[in-house]
Amino acid sequence: MKVVIVGGVAGGATAAARLRRLDEQAEIVMIERTGYVSYANCGLPYYVGDVITDKRKLTLQSPKSFRERFDIDVRVRQEVIGINRAAKTVLVRNLEDGSEYEESYDSLILSPGAKAVKPDLPGIEDRRILTLRTVEDTFAMKQRADELAEQGRTRAVVIGGGFIGIEAAENLLERGFDVTLLQRGNHVMPTLDYDMACEVHAYAREHGLDLRLNQSVNGFVADEDSDELAVTTAAGDEYHAPLVVLAIGVTPDTRLAEEAGLELGIKKSIVVDKHMRTSDPAIFAVGDAVQVKNFVTGDDALISLAGPANKQGRIAADVICGRDSSFDGSQGSSVLKLFDMTIAATGLTESAAQRAGIACDKAVTSSPSHATYYPGASNMTVKTVFEPESGRILGAQIAGFEGVDKRIDVLATTIRARMTAADLEELDLAYAPPYSSAKDPVNMAGFVIENVRTGLVAQHHWNDVARLQQEGAQFLDVRTEGEFARGHIEGAVNIPLDELRGRVKELDPERTVYVNCHSGLRSYVACRMLAGHGLACSNLSGGYRFYALVQNDAAFDETPTHPCGVPIS
Amino acid sequence: MKVVIVGGVAGGATAAARLRRLDEQAEIVMIERTGYVSYANCGLPYYVGDVITDKRKLTLQSPKSFRERFDIDVRVRQEVIGINRAAKTVLVRNLEDGSEYEESYDSLILSPGAKAVKPDLPGIEDRRILTLRTVEDTFAMKQRADELAEQGRTRAVVIGGGFIGIEAAENLLERGFDVTLLQRGNHVMPTLDYDMACEVHAYAREHGLDLRLNQSVNGFVADEDSDELAVTTAAGDEYHAPLVVLAIGVTPDTRLAEEAGLELGIKKSIVVDKHMRTSDPAIFAVGDAVQVKNFVTGDDALISLAGPANKQGRIAADVICGRDSSFDGSQGSSVLKLFDMTIAATGLTESAAQRAGIACDKAVTSSPSHATYYPGASNMTVKTVFEPESGRILGAQIAGFEGVDKRIDVLATTIRARMTAADLEELDLAYAPPYSSAKDPVNMAGFVIENVRTGLVAQHHWNDVARLQQEGAQFLDVRTEGEFARGHIEGAVNIPLDELRGRVKELDPERTVYVNCHSGLRSYVACRMLAGHGLACSNLSGGYRFYALVQNDAAFDETPTHPCGVPIS
Repeated sequence: MKVVIVGGVAGGATAAARLRRLDEQAEIVMIERTGYVSYANCGLPYYVGDVITDKRKLTLQSPKSFRERFDIDVRVRQEVIGINRAAKTVLVRNLEDGSEYEESYDSLILSPGAKAVKPDLPGIEDRRILTLRTVEDTFAMKQRADELAEQGRTRAVVIGGGFIGIEAAENLLERGFDVTLLQRGNHVMPTLDYDMACEVHAYAREHGLDLRLNQSVNGFVADEDSDELAVTTAAGDEYHAPLVVLAIGVTPDTRLAEEAGLELGIKKSIVVDKHMRTSDPAIFAVGDAVQVKNFVTGDDALISLAGPANKQGRIAADVICGRDSSFDGSQGSSVLKLFDMTIAATGLTESAAQRAGIACDKAVTSSPSHATYYPGASNMTVKTVFEPESGRILGAQIAGFEGVDKRIDVLATTIRARMTAADLEELDLAYAPPYSSAKDPVNMAGFVIENVRTGLVAQHHWNDVARLQQEGAQFLDVRTEGEFARGHIEGAVNIPLDELRGRVKELDPERTVYVNCHSGLRSYVACRMLAGHGLACSNLSGGYRFYALVQNDAAFDETPTHPCGVPIS
Repeated sequence: MKVVIVGGVAGGATAAARLRRLDEQAEIVMIERTGYVSYANCGLPYYVGDVITDKRKLTLQSPKSFRERFDIDVRVRQEVIGINRAAKTVLVRNLEDGSEYEESYDSLILSPGAKAVKPDLPGIEDRRILTLRTVEDTFAMKQRADELAEQGRTRAVVIGGGFIGIEAAENLLERGFDVTLLQRGNHVMPTLDYDMACEVHAYAREHGLDLRLNQSVNGFVADEDSDELAVTTAAGDEYHAPLVVLAIGVTPDTRLAEEAGLELGIKKSIVVDKHMRTSDPAIFAVGDAVQVKNFVTGDDALISLAGPANKQGRIAADVICGRDSSFDGSQGSSVLKLFDMTIAATGLTESAAQRAGIACDKAVTSSPSHATYYPGASNMTVKTVFEPESGRILGAQIAGFEGVDKRIDVLATTIRARMTAADLEELDLAYAPPYSSAKDPVNMAGFVIENVRTGLVAQHHWNDVARLQQEGAQFLDVRTEGEFARGHIEGAVNIPLDELRGRVKELDPERTVYVNCHSGLRSYVACRMLAGHGLACSNLSGGYRFYALVQNDAAFDETPTHPCGVPIS
């Protein structure tokens, strides 16, 4: 049996190693157009930021080690430029000398990945515009950053607020660069809803990122004298820097598959069945280039992440060797570090659920990372998206510090198990004061959702407040006087929780009371108290803190400070 | 409706607060014999160790705050000394003045907790022997430790290696005490199997704990002149110290329930149904005093942990208020900090599965906490216990540093969902280099188990090696020559993995090859390679590292150093 693998990073390299473990006799050829295989794709930004300082650490396996350990014929700096499906051969070009040759296969695995999107804008080919996808890209960006740092010209513009954009911005900031990040829409990170992204916006701004939302870049103008580039936007602003990182996303790199006539899906991704087999039974495809099922909706989706790519590589190898393995879809679990903050998501966002036409509700809870009496606890904001009827957990997003990655993995597992909010209540998680609370943040999300679902308390959200204010609704803030004085919902009356029982008469019993506290816990207690006195109530999910966070985010955009941009007027 | 709650800590306090939230009109009386309610039970050892320095932080709620916020009649320093089930009254004694009175109830919730076991040994009542269960205990121990530290007499003996014993030892060590820990059996922590406990033993010893296993204490001899106590053991040793912490376990504190004629179970725990109702329908019981179902086996069990206690308190309140809540059993998820180490467990240990008569196998895997190319990664040892036939996950134990608590919570969730090893392979967990690997340690456990279950590789364990040696088995060590030289299984030949393909002929093809490397990964690759050349193989689960760990632990016990103990001879 002879297997040719196109692409030697996550999915391809995993497939190669698994193939060898399954079949000592197979002939395995792995062809990679860059100079590196099985490299640390997700670690590249940290090399630019001097967090990873040893170049060799970026390559988990060298072509040599791969050959020695797995007896795999690794060919780097070679590119497969054509597939002859009838003859079962690929045409390979040696990028060193331009020579070409044919290679036969019994099975072919395509793992071409995705390529950085490069829009057709004036000046896009300027050498100061760098992307971050390959090891070579990384070395180039690192070299440029080093040069600029040496010259004291520490200014950069990052275009795009996805994972790579934010990680690049963070790493440049850590190196002392002034960084402006331009984002097309109203929030960074497509894995988050707008409200949760506001957590990231506020934190990033506090840590020195010049974040500009709703900025559509329309071109680049070079100034060779200053060795700078002006990034121009549709709004007429210009941002000058000697280094521009282009990170507006990736798109499946499937020209080869397309030319071979394989069935393509979303954004020309490769269509595969659950065994990772393409429309040609001898050809498999894995990784960022393939169309997968969204595990939650069952819909076709594109999910570019290392975890699924690795699993798919393993599955393709299994199937080629006659094992019954299959990929049941991806739920897009992801996590991002931004300085000390951790931002994580799994399953559907609220907006994704709405787009998919799935009825959904949400609960925003604020929970400490561990017992508050043990030093070092910090709060995390958990947004849990659920199906109101069944209570099924559809997705979750968490922003915070310690322990965010833990809770998202627990929630990811509950989604995989198709668990409900009632199941979250019952999860038996490990508790000791340095690690958690007796009621873990995941349990808390379950409690809150079940309180809502069983009618114990009604809730409203930050985006209901403006409408309620217009309707002249009755707002009650049960925080302390000091907290209230530092900011509150316009029109709210303040009765601290511990005084409420004696002051119920101050409220109009004929109208619903819209109650808030800081995070939603005291106001829940207040709602139950008032309900016991016959008043209709609603609890502000996420509390005043979350409401104010989103308000401030919107206000930030309306009064831009433009410390670095030069408005054209 | 009038509810009387006996005991105001985890389960009782939770029940009280939930009752109030469910019923604003209910009369709720909470009676607590200590001076504190809703205190930070699990935080007490950290107050002794000056990790928690603010006394007030130990009490999450004061009687006053409980009264104000929840309108609950909190009575501290009062003890319920009798229940008249026919009349539905309890007899209460005021511990301040000795007066007694009756209190009626519609529903009664018993949350008496468990009490520290105090064996009937000579000298057990000595004032230098302290336990750690209540806030008062904690203040007493803290005061004694402070006095001794001031006098420069920093010696302590801790009896018992469960959670409290280890936490007490750690906190005293952190304060500069010399600490001897005496453990009756061959390992600390009943939540672990012996082999996994060896991880704790080795680490604790490295960090200065004088750990003595298989030590049965038989008495205490006071020396008033030196203000010291001699702890004597059955083996004839004596350990001298001015402070002895007795932490050999807890037992349900159910005298009240017993005298009231309620049905009792294991160790006189209170029998309850899944709604936390005792054999008297007007009486509920929650927390450490009740008998629960082991979630994995379905058998009756005693599980003293704060998480289940809190959930049970909530459920009892729900049921009293007519809501349909139930407790589906506990899987005993737990986590312990020991300096920088984290030790966690969930579900069944191997020995517990054997005791329960459940067929089980195990996989010991060593995985990095996060991508090894990103700074700060450390390895964790994961022991996963599974049902061979179905692949169902029965339990897991993990010892390591960063990220141990995360993986145990994910595994706890998979056990709750009754998932199998094949499900572990497919878990879609959040990956970025600072947090995990594209193949998370939990995925890895799934991969290894499925490789075993599907016959891709056979495995043997550390405890098979001695027998195999006696049988003259063929051992192969595929680590590098340097690793091999630093220690190896007696009788093993060394062929480094990367040379193995060319040196297969050095092995006897007629006999099974028992292969090991450091942790089990390279040896797995070797097994597959050899299988491809027609040899029968078996992989040493957990590798040489785990084998040597257990060997060293056993050797440690055979050659005691006795730096502090005074052997009587």
